[in-house]
Amino acid sequence: MTGRDLTTITGKTRVLAILADPIGHVKAPPGINAIAIRRARDAVMVPFQVAPEHLVAFAVSLRTLKSFDGGIVTVPHKGAMAGICDEISSRARMMGAVNVIRREDDGRLVGDMLDGVGFVAGLGSKGISVEGKRVYLVGAGGAASAIAFALVEASIAHLTLANRTSDKAQDLCDRIRSHAPDASVSVGTTDPAGHDIVINGTSLGMKPGDPLPLDAAGLAPGMIVAEVIMEPETTPLLAAAGEKGCRTHPGKPMLEQQLELMASFFKL
Amino acid sequence: MTGRDLTTITGKTRVLAILADPIGHVKAPPGINAIAIRRARDAVMVPFQVAPEHLVAFAVSLRTLKSFDGGIVTVPHKGAMAGICDEISSRARMMGAVNVIRREDDGRLVGDMLDGVGFVAGLGSKGISVEGKRVYLVGAGGAASAIAFALVEASIAHLTLANRTSDKAQDLCDRIRSHAPDASVSVGTTDPAGHDIVINGTSLGMKPGDPLPLDAAGLAPGMIVAEVIMEPETTPLLAAAGEKGCRTHPGKPMLEQQLELMASFFKL
Repeated sequence: MTGRDLTTITGKTRVLAILADPIGHVKAPPGINAIAIRRARDAVMVPFQVAPEHLVAFAVSLRTLKSFDGGIVTVPHKGAMAGICDEISSRARMMGAVNVIRREDDGRLVGDMLDGVGFVAGLGSKGISVEGKRVYLVGAGGAASAIAFALVEASIAHLTLANRTSDKAQDLCDRIRSHAPDASVSVGTTDPAGHDIVINGTSLGMKPGDPLPLDAAGLAPGMIVAEVIMEPETTPLLAAAGEKGCRTHPGKPMLEQQLELMASFFKL
Repeated sequence: MTGRDLTTITGKTRVLAILADPIGHVKAPPGINAIAIRRARDAVMVPFQVAPEHLVAFAVSLRTLKSFDGGIVTVPHKGAMAGICDEISSRARMMGAVNVIRREDDGRLVGDMLDGVGFVAGLGSKGISVEGKRVYLVGAGGAASAIAFALVEASIAHLTLANRTSDKAQDLCDRIRSHAPDASVSVGTTDPAGHDIVINGTSLGMKPGDPLPLDAAGLAPGMIVAEVIMEPETTPLLAAAGEKGCRTHPGKPMLEQQLELMASFFKL
């Protein structure tokens, strides 16, 4: 995955960036740079820390930065950047957010949102197809919303949305219906019984002592239980699911697959 | 000099840039990145290609790019950037140009011009002091002007300026006198006789068939003859000087020393 020294960067090297504020914690640059090396592309991702109040002006300048090919957009810029881009995908429009931008040769910035498709691709990388499945998803925040839209795009049989604050689940349900009137989607309870795939799209499980995001009594052998959480790798939910005889799917493949999708979006 | 992979770039890595248009030919990034590695600093230089008409707006955005520490400024931006910086050194003001900028923590851009001091430091790196010397300099363009100002700052005994278009040499002479009224400086002929150090500050010698920049008959044993030209390493002038028993000094140490000065200016 590695094998290219910083001293190989020249005037011809294409620049990629990750936009965030704060930025010290971001994880993507090593992964994207490893992909660039593996794909033998002369490009490098570096951190661009810009405060929210300067994002609009900064994006104007990115249009004029001819050596810039694109970037990852993360907290707190995902929503604002969706409004700044010259063109965004329909799924980014549904989400009102982008997590990648690409600079076209004419300077236009094109945005997309790969959080959800990255999750679905992560399942696919482990041989799990969502097509035709009954899926239970906990959460109604940014990650869960992106996954919900991606699942509906991926032709699942039914999507059940659950959330501690059920109003938010209902709101997400309504948004999905307004964009995909034919989608089979409903608001459920904490009980995941009767589904093929169960997904935690909340942050419950990151901190020691977090309650489970759902009622584990409803888990049954044959179910696939998947996480968005990457740390710890085995969350209490995945541990409980393993004990119940479910197949478990940790959060890391989502990141790996999303990095590949991002690299392809940048035309790496 | 090397030994750091692109995959070691993280959200904490500081960004340096070289600003140019076109940019594919620039030589500095590998040298600056080698210095960063040697100094064990987590920083990387990448190319920023920006057209002249977008430079002012782009520089405004550089002030807001919190992960940016500074950059090299080269053709065609040296003059314009001098006017854009919030603060420039007195030698940059004399030149009306900068070749480096640094971003302070508060976002202010500070500029300096290291072309001339880099040349003087290059001589120094080979044990050649200019202090108290009679120096003959051919050329009146950007490189020669920077060297002229740096020589005057370095307490030489006398500076003789020569140029094919003698009006330009006179103009440079007048500019030096207006900034340094006590400087001993005059306009000379093509004959370098009577000087301790002879410097070619023109591009004559880069292309096969170029005439010599001065009358080699005036060269004598004991003189030091120095070049700004890096390619070829041994120019026709240096070859002629060697035959005359002069000590010769090629262009490369200027670049090497200037990269060190630039790195220190960026606080690498």
